Amino acid sequence: MQEYGDGETLPPLRIGVAGLGNVGATLVRILQKDGAELTKKLGRQLVVTAVAARSRSRDRGIDITNLDWFDDPVALAKSEGIDLFVELIGGEDGPAFAAVKAALEIGRPVVTANKALLAKHGLTLARMAEESGAQLGFEAAVAGGIPVIKTLREGLGSARIAKVFGIMNGTCNYILTRMGNEDISFADCLKDAQALGYAEADPTFDVEGFDTAHKLSILATLCFGYEIAPDKIRVEGISRITQHDIKVAADLGYKIKLLGIAQRTDDGIEQRVHPTFVPKGSAIAGVDGVMNAVALETDHVHELLLAGPGAGGPPTASSVLSDILDIARGTRVPPLGVPSHELMPYREAPMRAHEGGYYIRLNAKDVPGALAAITTRMGERNISIDSVIQRSDLSAKAVAPDGSPTRTVVMITQQTLESSVRESLAQIAADGFIVGEPQLIRIETL
Amino acid sequence: MQEYGDGETLPPLRIGVAGLGNVGATLVRILQKDGAELTKKLGRQLVVTAVAARSRSRDRGIDITNLDWFDDPVALAKSEGIDLFVELIGGEDGPAFAAVKAALEIGRPVVTANKALLAKHGLTLARMAEESGAQLGFEAAVAGGIPVIKTLREGLGSARIAKVFGIMNGTCNYILTRMGNEDISFADCLKDAQALGYAEADPTFDVEGFDTAHKLSILATLCFGYEIAPDKIRVEGISRITQHDIKVAADLGYKIKLLGIAQRTDDGIEQRVHPTFVPKGSAIAGVDGVMNAVALETDHVHELLLAGPGAGGPPTASSVLSDILDIARGTRVPPLGVPSHELMPYREAPMRAHEGGYYIRLNAKDVPGALAAITTRMGERNISIDSVIQRSDLSAKAVAPDGSPTRTVVMITQQTLESSVRESLAQIAADGFIVGEPQLIRIETL
Repeated sequence: MQEYGDGETLPPLRIGVAGLGNVGATLVRILQKDGAELTKKLGRQLVVTAVAARSRSRDRGIDITNLDWFDDPVALAKSEGIDLFVELIGGEDGPAFAAVKAALEIGRPVVTANKALLAKHGLTLARMAEESGAQLGFEAAVAGGIPVIKTLREGLGSARIAKVFGIMNGTCNYILTRMGNEDISFADCLKDAQALGYAEADPTFDVEGFDTAHKLSILATLCFGYEIAPDKIRVEGISRITQHDIKVAADLGYKIKLLGIAQRTDDGIEQRVHPTFVPKGSAIAGVDGVMNAVALETDHVHELLLAGPGAGGPPTASSVLSDILDIARGTRVPPLGVPSHELMPYREAPMRAHEGGYYIRLNAKDVPGALAAITTRMGERNISIDSVIQRSDLSAKAVAPDGSPTRTVVMITQQTLESSVRESLAQIAADGFIVGEPQLIRIETL
Repeated sequence: MQEYGDGETLPPLRIGVAGLGNVGATLVRILQKDGAELTKKLGRQLVVTAVAARSRSRDRGIDITNLDWFDDPVALAKSEGIDLFVELIGGEDGPAFAAVKAALEIGRPVVTANKALLAKHGLTLARMAEESGAQLGFEAAVAGGIPVIKTLREGLGSARIAKVFGIMNGTCNYILTRMGNEDISFADCLKDAQALGYAEADPTFDVEGFDTAHKLSILATLCFGYEIAPDKIRVEGISRITQHDIKVAADLGYKIKLLGIAQRTDDGIEQRVHPTFVPKGSAIAGVDGVMNAVALETDHVHELLLAGPGAGGPPTASSVLSDILDIARGTRVPPLGVPSHELMPYREAPMRAHEGGYYIRLNAKDVPGALAAITTRMGERNISIDSVIQRSDLSAKAVAPDGSPTRTVVMITQQTLESSVRESLAQIAADGFIVGEPQLIRIETL
């Protein structure tokens, strides 16, 4: 048993796994099944020696009878019987946080797939890891099976990143893809996604964009060298997307995707999560179903796109394992890309001029002068309208509170400031020519 | 100046660069300009101390007056004044091979962007590196700015790869993309590509698929653990692709891409390079222009797609730099993914049943019974024809040697064996009903 390149014999790496859900059980299975092949690759044996979970007796399709059992993940994290602690419990606080801290405090390397934990406590944990000399891996925390953390921490050489954006939530992408392929409403599609296990019973966290925001905040720190700031993100989900939006997008040559976008500006960092029109022929538009993708725009590399499965036991376990292999090899990288004392305090950019146009869908009262009044208000804010689309086949049959019929109007603007669009819409609402909340979707040329 | 996580002070890493073309000059510029930022990230200084190139006086936009100059790259590789040797000379033999060997022999780490060198001598070089304990990095050798080597060597955990395929030549992808967007012939498009610097004066190596084959052979070894076998690849280029092919592909919902494909089969490894029909909506179809992409199909991660710039000074230099950073950090990975003595002797799979159909374009004599005779021959080999397409607007106005007019016939087959298609075409040619060489393009569902 030799490490590559020198004569030293390395002892087996003893791994403790806390959390035996889908990912944890898959990881244990892979390590038990593919152990010999991994040893060949690595020159060092990897052995799961201990586990912690809620139920000892649950059938997970793996044999844990020969492993040390812990009811308390903190006790496992501190146990003398392991060299590396894997946290797959989940949750931003509670036992996951306590156990990860306990391991890092004593200089024990940690691998976690927990994006909520990283978004909230990543800076604290990175500092602890640096102080005690422990490694902290979290490849699986963002975009499941896609090696985006490694690419950002190690793979881009000197490339200075200007913008990162991506599809980071499989639930949303599944729903939007199906809505694009079939004439099905958001609500019905969500029900199917829940039945298929692609969406949680309470889907808010996914469909309203918060999960994407967590992941984006971690990527933004690795990209730009600022402290993690999950609370400085404008977040908008997909629950208000209708078939009307999807179909007009298709007519115009776009697909709608929920993107997380972070970019470096002269005034600081801009982070946002929202549904976006992306051009149909673009690589990111081809990322469908439960797939994820992350695109990086750099000074040197132009654009790099990484696409793959964003969730699921095997892809996520494979990412956890790639962190384990790095630690077994002795690879040393600061958890957040640069030593944490080099991270800059977060600087939030004011919402800047959005480069690209807007899709605006309104329910306008079907009365003479309504459209003229609406477009006049937009003209007052210097918003140029590229096209006005009225598709009677898609138009919702609504009636205003005053009894007048309404028709759905879609306007596509040229490049303009988001603030101008929002101000003009507020005035249009005050004028009384529209009913309900307008739909506003950004168009990105990418 | 401290390495992350321990108290040890590391001396600056002294770098010698052989070859100051576009990539070499860009690398020196980045190291001179971004040195401070890299030092912050790495905790260790990177300094170019010496260079070798053909002309000392040529203006490259960088200041080399303070660097040690070598006329002979081998002397630079062995010089006491450097800790790491970067080979950017190119060529599969000659000074590049001699210099890389000279460095590895004395245990000095090497970074190279030279795919031809790796395809031909990769195994020899990996063995030398392992014997002397030197690291050997070649991220830039495949798909320029895309971190595919790192992903394969380190990033996929346990994932067992079943298939790798990709667009690995920017010249070909530029030509095929333009032919898809404009009504322009291969020959005219190639001329433009040459004028724009996207194609060499002698374009054979690129457009006939040999460059893709070199890269594929390196990826196949990293994916499957067999010795590198660049000579065991069926290679077909794009020079026979016509507007007819492009337009029929578009009608049927496909784009034509030059793919390198390697896959693991029960009978060994299959490696091939050829133009391919790929479905328009797929992520790889969205990879246009000079962009490259590599897709990995694994047992655990399903499909992973990495897309980005395949060439150009800055992206390639950035990949070279990511190897330099890894070496500066002390990362240790076997050059070919597993220790070279663990690589299996190459086992070539017989060309197996191609999963998917074929596009066949023929110039058939416009005489009664021709089509019946052709389709009968195909039926004899159990080839099911999905559709027969005759677009008179695209049909070449050709005349057979016997004076009879011809018309272009396109047939799309259902899934069948390539050997059956080739045998039936040989018989059809012998029957005398077609003129010229048929065009045969594989359809991949991906």
